[in-house]
Parts: sequence; C-alpha cells; structure tokens
Amino acid sequence: MPNLNLHGIIAYPVTPFKDGGETIDTDTLSQLIEQLIENGSHAIAPLGSTGESAYLSDAEWEEVAFVSIHQVAKRVPTVVGISELTTHNAIRRAKFAQQVGSDAVMVLPISYWKLSEREIFQHYAAIAQAISIPIMVYNNPATSGIDLSPELIARMVKEIDNVTMVKESTGDIQRMHRLYELSDGTIPFYNGSNPLALEAFAAGASGWCTAAHNLIPEFTTALYEFALKGDFFEARRIFYQQLPLLKFILKGGLPTTIKAGLQLLGIKAGTPRLPMLPLDETEVRQLDSMHINTTRQRTVSHFTKQIG
Amino acid sequence: MPNLNLHGIIAYPVTPFKDGGETIDTDTLSQLIEQLIENGSHAIAPLGSTGESAYLSDAEWEEVAFVSIHQVAKRVPTVVGISELTTHNAIRRAKFAQQVGSDAVMVLPISYWKLSEREIFQHYAAIAQAISIPIMVYNNPATSGIDLSPELIARMVKEIDNVTMVKESTGDIQRMHRLYELSDGTIPFYNGSNPLALEAFAAGASGWCTAAHNLIPEFTTALYEFALKGDFFEARRIFYQQLPLLKFILKGGLPTTIKAGLQLLGIKAGTPRLPMLPLDETEVRQLDSMHINTTRQRTVSHFTKQIG
Amino acid sequence: MPNLNLHGIIAYPVTPFKDGGETIDTDTLSQLIEQLIENGSHAIAPLGSTGESAYLSDAEWEEVAFVSIHQVAKRVPTVVGISELTTHNAIRRAKFAQQVGSDAVMVLPISYWKLSEREIFQHYAAIAQAISIPIMVYNNPATSGIDLSPELIARMVKEIDNVTMVKESTGDIQRMHRLYELSDGTIPFYNGSNPLALEAFAAGASGWCTAAHNLIPEFTTALYEFALKGDFFEARRIFYQQLPLLKFILKGGLPTTIKAGLQLLGIKAGTPRLPMLPLDETEVRQLDSMHINTTRQRTVSHFTKQIG
Amino acid sequence: MPNLNLHGIIAYPVTPFKDGGETIDTDTLSQLIEQLIENGSHAIAPLGSTGESAYLSDAEWEEVAFVSIHQVAKRVPTVVGISELTTHNAIRRAKFAQQVGSDAVMVLPISYWKLSEREIFQHYAAIAQAISIPIMVYNNPATSGIDLSPELIARMVKEIDNVTMVKESTGDIQRMHRLYELSDGTIPFYNGSNPLALEAFAAGASGWCTAAHNLIPEFTTALYEFALKGDFFEARRIFYQQLPLLKFILKGGLPTTIKAGLQLLGIKAGTPRLPMLPLDETEVRQLDSMHINTTRQRTVSHFTKQIG
Repeated sequence: MPNLNLHGIIAYPVTPFKDGGETIDTDTLSQLIEQLIENGSHAIAPLGSTGESAYLSDAEWEEVAFVSIHQVAKRVPTVVGISELTTHNAIRRAKFAQQVGSDAVMVLPISYWKLSEREIFQHYAAIAQAISIPIMVYNNPATSGIDLSPELIARMVKEIDNVTMVKESTGDIQRMHRLYELSDGTIPFYNGSNPLALEAFAAGASGWCTAAHNLIPEFTTALYEFALKGDFFEARRIFYQQLPLLKFILKGGLPTTIKAGLQLLGIKAGTPRLPMLPLDETEVRQLDSMHINTTRQRTVSHFTKQIG
Repeated sequence: MPNLNLHGIIAYPVTPFKDGGETIDTDTLSQLIEQLIENGSHAIAPLGSTGESAYLSDAEWEEVAFVSIHQVAKRVPTVVGISELTTHNAIRRAKFAQQVGSDAVMVLPISYWKLSEREIFQHYAAIAQAISIPIMVYNNPATSGIDLSPELIARMVKEIDNVTMVKESTGDIQRMHRLYELSDGTIPFYNGSNPLALEAFAAGASGWCTAAHNLIPEFTTALYEFALKGDFFEARRIFYQQLPLLKFILKGGLPTTIKAGLQLLGIKAGTPRLPMLPLDETEVRQLDSMHINTTRQRTVSHFTKQIG
Repeated sequence: MPNLNLHGIIAYPVTPFKDGGETIDTDTLSQLIEQLIENGSHAIAPLGSTGESAYLSDAEWEEVAFVSIHQVAKRVPTVVGISELTTHNAIRRAKFAQQVGSDAVMVLPISYWKLSEREIFQHYAAIAQAISIPIMVYNNPATSGIDLSPELIARMVKEIDNVTMVKESTGDIQRMHRLYELSDGTIPFYNGSNPLALEAFAAGASGWCTAAHNLIPEFTTALYEFALKGDFFEARRIFYQQLPLLKFILKGGLPTTIKAGLQLLGIKAGTPRLPMLPLDETEVRQLDSMHINTTRQRTVSHFTKQIG
Repeated sequence: MPNLNLHGIIAYPVTPFKDGGETIDTDTLSQLIEQLIENGSHAIAPLGSTGESAYLSDAEWEEVAFVSIHQVAKRVPTVVGISELTTHNAIRRAKFAQQVGSDAVMVLPISYWKLSEREIFQHYAAIAQAISIPIMVYNNPATSGIDLSPELIARMVKEIDNVTMVKESTGDIQRMHRLYELSDGTIPFYNGSNPLALEAFAAGASGWCTAAHNLIPEFTTALYEFALKGDFFEARRIFYQQLPLLKFILKGGLPTTIKAGLQLLGIKAGTPRLPMLPLDETEVRQLDSMHINTTRQRTVSHFTKQIG
C-alpha cells in the first residue's frame, strides 16, 4: 500500500444537479474540482457529506466518483466518501472507488439501529479486506448517529491493515488529544469540524477536511500555511476572519450553504435534494455579507477563465 | 378517507431472510404475520424499524409490502412503514403501498443532514399529496436522527389532510401529555417505546406499536386488555412481568433480538443484515431465560399447526 | 424504628419571609401547614426544595423545623428536608430534626464537586448512624447536581439500616421501574416530579411529594384517591386538568411560583430569596388563569376561618 | 478602577486543613502560596473551586482570604473566589475581600433553583455595586449548575461597570470564540479547563486558571511562555507531556487530587472535607506515576528551603 501522505486542505466539492435536481451536472462538477485544485487544495474528497453521498442512487454515486477521479487526474490525492447503511453496499462502493482509481476511501458507518463496537469493527474489517487502498475512518455522530470512541478508532488502525487515518468531525478537541495519546502521535488525524480549524492544527491535525474551500480558498489555505509554520498569531488572525462563515455553513448544512454560496459566486450548482430546501432570502443575504464577498472578484475571474 | 380506528396491539413482524441473508423468505414472513394475527394483534405494521425497512433495496421492500398486505387480507388494518432519506423515494414507496392495498403508511423522516421544521413539514405534505390513505407521523430520533416536537406534529395533523395519527417512540411521556394538551385529546397517539407501555396507556395512548408481540403475545394483549378496562392494578402486574424482556429487546435492537427470540421458538427467520450481528451466546441465554419461555409451548404448537 | 407507612400526598410548604425577606414569618408558616393538613395532605415536608432549605442560615433552618413539627403535632407524619454540602452540616441538621420530633428526614446530597458512589454511600451511612429515625433518599440531579442510580439507591436501602424510602424527582419513569425490579416492589418510592404524577402512580409509587397541594388541593388529593382505587380513567381526567399548573410550577421554580400563587389566594408568604426574583406581571397573569382560580373561593374561606 | 492586567498562570491554592479537617492550617496555606509565586505564577486565586470555597463557614472563608492576601503582599494580583447561593452572602464576602485588600473577585453564581438571565444579571449587578474592585465572571456549569451564555457574559461586561473579565471552564472552545467575536477581542478571557490549556491560548486566552501549578509548575509556566512567543510546536510538545496529569486532576476533582499530589511532594495539606474522600491507593499510585515525579526533587527542595 503506497504511503498517501495526506495533509493540508482536503477540499469537498458539492454534487451539482441540473434538470430540477434529476440529474448530475458533470460539467459543473468537473469545473468545481478544477477550481478547488487551482485554489490550492492538497486533496479532493468527492461524495462526502457535502457531496450528498447518502442521497444518491448507486448509478449517480458511481458517476460522480468516476468523473471526479478522472478530473483530478492524480494531480493531488482523491479520497472518495462512502456512507452506507449495509456492509454489502459499502463494500460494493469501495470496490468501485478503487477500480476507477481513487487513492483512498473515507468510510462513515451510517446507522439506523445503533451498532456495537464489535459490529463497527467487522464493518471496517470487511470493507478493508475487499480493497487494497487506504481507508480513512470518519467519525461524525451528528450525521451518522454512531459515535466512534478514540479507543475503538485507534484499535482499528492498529489491527486492520489498510485502516490508516481518521477524520474527526465531532468538534471535540479532547478526541484529538486522545487519539494522539493512544498512538503517541503516530495516527494521522484530520479535522472535519470547521469552527475547530485553528485549534485542531494546534493539537497536531495533519489536515483540514473542509467545504469552505469552495467559497473562501484564500482563507482556508492561509490558515493552513500559518499553522504549518507554527505562527499562531497570524493563524489566529486569519481564523477569526473566516469564523462567521465557518459557523454559518455548519449551522445551515454544507450542501445547502455551499450551493447557495456558489450561486452568489455565479456558479450554478443547483440546490440540494429534497427534503433539503435551499436557503431562504434572509439567509442568502446573511451569507452574502460574509467574507465570501472579499474573494468573489478573484474567484469568479478564475472560474470564468477555467470554464471559458 | 375511511376512518381507520387503529387501536390496541399494532404488531411489527421482522423481515425474514434466507440464503445467507441474500433473499427475502416470504414463506416465513407469511407465517409470522399469520401468527401475529392469530395471537390477537389488532393491526400489522410490516417494514417498520423491526422490519429492517431502511436496509432493503427497492425491490425487496416492495416484495415485503406486497406479501404482507396480501397475507393480512384486510382481517386487521395494515400499516406499512416508510423511512427514506429523500422525499422522492418516500413518495415512490408510499404510492406503491397504497397501490397494493395498505390501509395507512407510517412515515419516519430519516436524516443525514438535520432538517428544519419547514423541511419536515414539506416532506410530509409532499407525501400526503401523492396518496390518499392516512399517514401516521413516526417520531423516533434515536434511529432517525430527527426529533419532531409535539407542536410540529400537532400542526401537521391539523394542516395536512391525511396526516392523522402519531407514533411516539422517544419514551418521553411528556411528549404524549403535550400532544394530548395541544389537541384536547383528539389526536390519536400510539406508543412505540416498549418500556413505556404501561404509562402510555395511563396517559391515553390508543395503542402500542410493538415487536414484543412476536415473542410474548399473551403478555402484550393482556396489558392492553387490562388498560382498556381501566384496571391498572392488573395492568401493572402484567407489565412488570414482561418488563425485563421489553428492556432487553430495546437495548439489543429489535431486528436482532426478535430474530433471536424467534429462533428460540423454533422459527427460522434468519439474522439481521450486516453490519448488524446476531446476539452472541451469552445474550441468547439471557433472552432464553425471560418470559419468552413461558409462552413457548403454546406458541410453537400454534405455529406448527399454522405451517403444518 | 417505627414503621412510618408514608403514603398519599406529601405536601411541601414554602418558607414565608417577612421584613423584606430578612426574617422567617412563623405565623404564616403555621397557617400554611394548618391549611395543607386541613386540605387533605397525608404528610408534611418542611424545608424541601420548595421550602428554600438550602438558602437558610442554620438558625433559620432550625426555626422552620421546630415551628413546622410543633404545628403538625403528629396529626400526620413530618418529614424534614436536609440538603447540605458537607456531611458535617447534614449530620448536625439531621440530629436537630430528630431531637425536635421529626418522624423522618429527607436527604439530598448537594454537590459542588461531583461525588463518587463511594462518597455518596458514606454520606448517607454517616447521617444514618447519627440518628434513629428513617431516612428518605432524595434524588434530584436538576437541583443537586448529583444523580443517584437506582442500583446505588437500592443498595443503600438494603445495607444502611434506617435508609428506607426514596423520593425520585428526575421525572424518568424508568428509574421507578428499575427500583421496583431491584427490590421486587418492596422499596417504597415517592414521585417528586409533578408532571409525572399520573404515571408514577401507575408504576406503583406510594405517594406524591408536591407543592401543588398549596394551590390546588382538591386536584392533588382527587388524583391520589382515584389512583388508590385503581380507577385510571378518572385519574387521567383529573390529571390533565391540573397538568398546565403542574408544568408551570416546575418550569418557574417551586418557591417562586408557589409564593406567587399564595399571593393570588390572598396569603402573604413573601418572595423567594435573592438571586431568585418574583414572577413578573405576565407570568402572574398566566398563573392566575390556571386551575388555581377554581379553588380560590373555597381555599380562601378555609384559610380565613383558620386564621380568624 | 485600576487596570489589573491579569495574564499568564493564575494559580489556585488548596485550602489546607489540620486537626482532622476541623481547622484551617494557615501556616501551610502561606507556604503553598509562597511556593506558587516562587514557581512563577502570575496571580494567586485563593478560595476557588480548588480551595473548597463553597465548603467553608463564613469565619473560615474570611480567615483564608485574609491570610492569602497578606501572604501574597501585592507581589502579584490576588483574585478571591466567591461562590454563594444567595446574593446577600455573595455581597458580604465580596465586601470582605475588598476590605482586606483583594485585587479582584471571581464570582460563580451557584444555583439550587435554576436562575434566569434576569436573575443572574441582577446578582452580578448587586455585587458590583457593593464593591469597587474588578469582578471576573466565572462560568463553570459542571460545579455551579448554571450555564452563562457568551452573550449574557458579554452584556454584563458591557453594562456593569466593574465586571471586566471572564473565566470560562466549560471546556468548550466555541465559547471563547464567541466571546472574542462579541467583543472584537476586547474582553479578556481566562481558561479554567485544564485539558483545554493549549487550544485556549491558540484562541487568544489571556491566561490559564489552574491548580496544576501546585504540582508541575515548570510545565504550566513553560506552556504559557511558548504560547506567549507564538511558538506552537513547542507549546504542543510540552502540553502533551502534562496532559495525562491535567486529565487526572479534572476527573478526580481538584481538591482531592491536588491534596494527594502535595502529599506525594511531602507537603501535608490534609484531605478534602467530607463527603469528599481522599484518593484510594490505586489512584495515588496512578498519580505518582505522572509527571509530578519529574518535578518532585526540585519542588521539595524549594519547599523545604521555604519552610526551613
């Protein structure tokens, strides 16, 4: 298994729809990915929570995976997201992702009935056995309904060969401390809670999994670069500037708010799937008043150039 | 819209699998339903949480709905469960249920991204508009990740024509009080939290949605009958006798524990879908030591007669 | 140790203040207790949460204990409340209560630093050893910051001689079920959560610890009497009639709301101690519109007769 | 009102007892304070949670306040802690603290009955009006039972003259972000959650309120010094080294664990007041195996010199 060395800004594209939400808009998807890379992202993670992975049919999911990987074209790593209720379906999607060239998969163990640690372990073990690319354990109880303890995660990294990294989205910094302690700092962990971006880097996170890079790439990359240098005065300054937006997109839901933000930037990515509704007018105005404005000029020009 | 007058024991069959979990075992499903009716259930609710509704493919789900409704054959009402992530899929399944003869549907608004009240309302309204049979609002945040307030539920019952009843599975008796207050006792509510069965009847519940009827039908029906007479001394006595089992099946998960219990009764319904695992040996022995034993003789003989 | 046989309505008087809150109004206290007994309470519990026990100096606390016990004069049992941070102070108050004739004490283990089970156990054991009257374990994490598990409570009742009863105020009916199970129904438990009054009786509670008896004694006693007969249709009817008031006093805080209600009934019991503030005008009007109105005529006439 | 400019390590001495816990050991108290200052603390905060403030009689509390302030002798600021149930008592203690020379008071609004924002505001306003030294708002719902929102805190700092600073002990970094946002970084906030020490500095905290300085002063001061320089690589390194101890003292309770740690260092500060119990043997061994060992030599020699 090749060393992936994932780090920095792991950017999450939305899944754009057209024809009233019926079909995937693969052209816009390609352009979005192009934009994310051009704006400095260190990896691309299609079909995450932001990408409405759980809301897609098998055929749609496969189309997005294929198009994304093809567009990235190995310039940076691609990490495809899998959030399936059954082990059977998770394995099918993981095998597809590997087959079409994904560098890794990020696996979220969605629940209806709560799962025991024994059940979670064998879910990951079964997927791991079916593929040979690295697996990122994704802990996000707010969306998945399952909370993976740092102890369980560390055990899976130790005992399952290609489980090698962790995305922590609880927003609880003590989870990162515990992962660090349990592995003497050897398990790479990535922060998935946007308003924790500053402190996660302080605690030693290898990267930041974020959809904010779609809207304010200068800010997200600047935060990472200051953190990388260990300059926390500047990191703090740039963090507080983007914090209102980071909180807004968390509160409003990533597909909803990022799609609204793209619209403000002149990019038509459609709206999220029902029952999710687009932002209402007041919310759009709120979003419009945030830092996204300051980057619009540049982003739009880039984008125009890109798609021109 | 016909008056459904749902009341009493609303029984939840599991979805039996054969061939290592690959296919639906429709023969056993029919027999289980026959058994539930014969043992006194006042309604049958296939494809609920117990029925692993969320874990089935569209084709499987439709097969279970069709077979179940056909087997019940209008002897008691059938209420088909729908727990879909997208409004689109929920509508498709609701229309199918109506088309093959379901008397009502029970709708659980599964979430990945949290839904606002506006989004939940329009989800129910869209489903309601697509069908003409009654809809039971199903609130079960532990599995769905969405908590519907009594105020929202009461408003939907009032404003959406065929939303007429509520299944409350939070286990919080104050929710039932609030529903009662908000509607002056006119909204029929059904308890879906097994260990609350006694008190829900005290608070005025019209029925008890339970999978326990698969294992201890004498106890479930006796509790309802005492409650119906207002005899709470006897209701309490019979409740505490079955409480250990009710807690066991809640804690272990309904598909897992009910399938294990059926196995103890000599009925092969398979195991739940992965990542869910069957009970381990210790748990099976624990289950075996419960009241299920006392009813085994009779149940098995009934069942044998049924399938003979 | 005499058998106390505590049951029914255990009524909680407020502690009335005069002179701008500086001194205890012992005359009004005596009259309130007289009123509670005359209106059918089966026991009196001064210095509970309602009695602002935790807000009184040692001298004030002793005065209230003495006056209350003297006024009750053994017509019904008196249960004095103790909620002290240190074991030392709890013992001192418990000994005083016994010395001046209390029939039992109700002990709430107030916390600043969380207590382990070992610490809680020895707290009760030390108090129990210092007195010979029965102790009621009082679980009310919302005010005390400590949650006593049913398992710990049952163990204390079993292992500490004069710990004999439990007041459960969590509002969680499953706690009562668990106490019942752990003792095969032999530990007498009393409900301290007003909006759970109906269901606690269904679950087998021996009594209802309530301050509502200060304002709507006809309703509280009627609920108990119907429950005692096992007539749950009537119990439910009378419960829903008083539920809005029961919720109002829980939400607004018992000393605050009961004192406001007494004021509406023409009884001057002062206001609670700062930082607690009296109800504002809107809240007083809300309270005034509740069932308290329907009983005002009778209560006031009784009270007038009493103090005349 | 003089500008206090509180920053850095605000150290919390325990309150030592002698004679089996009956009396304050003022000699040891003085020595502990001397030690804290000598080991680099930037302020001394007697009678905090660590100092068992809430467990002392009025006379004891006054004695500790007096002795502490006298010992510090203005070499660094002294901030006396007040955690009283009634506004009356809080004012009395605040006035005493000012009278004997405290530079500021730290006020925790202990609750029995929950307080509304109106009640909390007037509690602080009344205390503020009674004194002229600065007040630090102390938010610690785990011990006090009241959670002060950043919005309420910011409003009190703005509207009440001598409320000027905030100690945040929830351990929720988002509270600090919010305080920063609400005041554009102008409200000085201090972290009171030991395992959040690193990230609180990242977020802009002015200081760290900690009892750990009693046991591992080299580590606490080193963390602050690296943070002050903005060197987060070194800050992180030293933080993870002390984290096990920081978690241990949080989990075991500060008075209990710090007193046990002092005992290991050869300093007899007694045990906490009942119902709090000393650490058991296993816990003492656990504590003994932590970083406290590495500093023992030096600390003891310092201390010996001090008291020699």
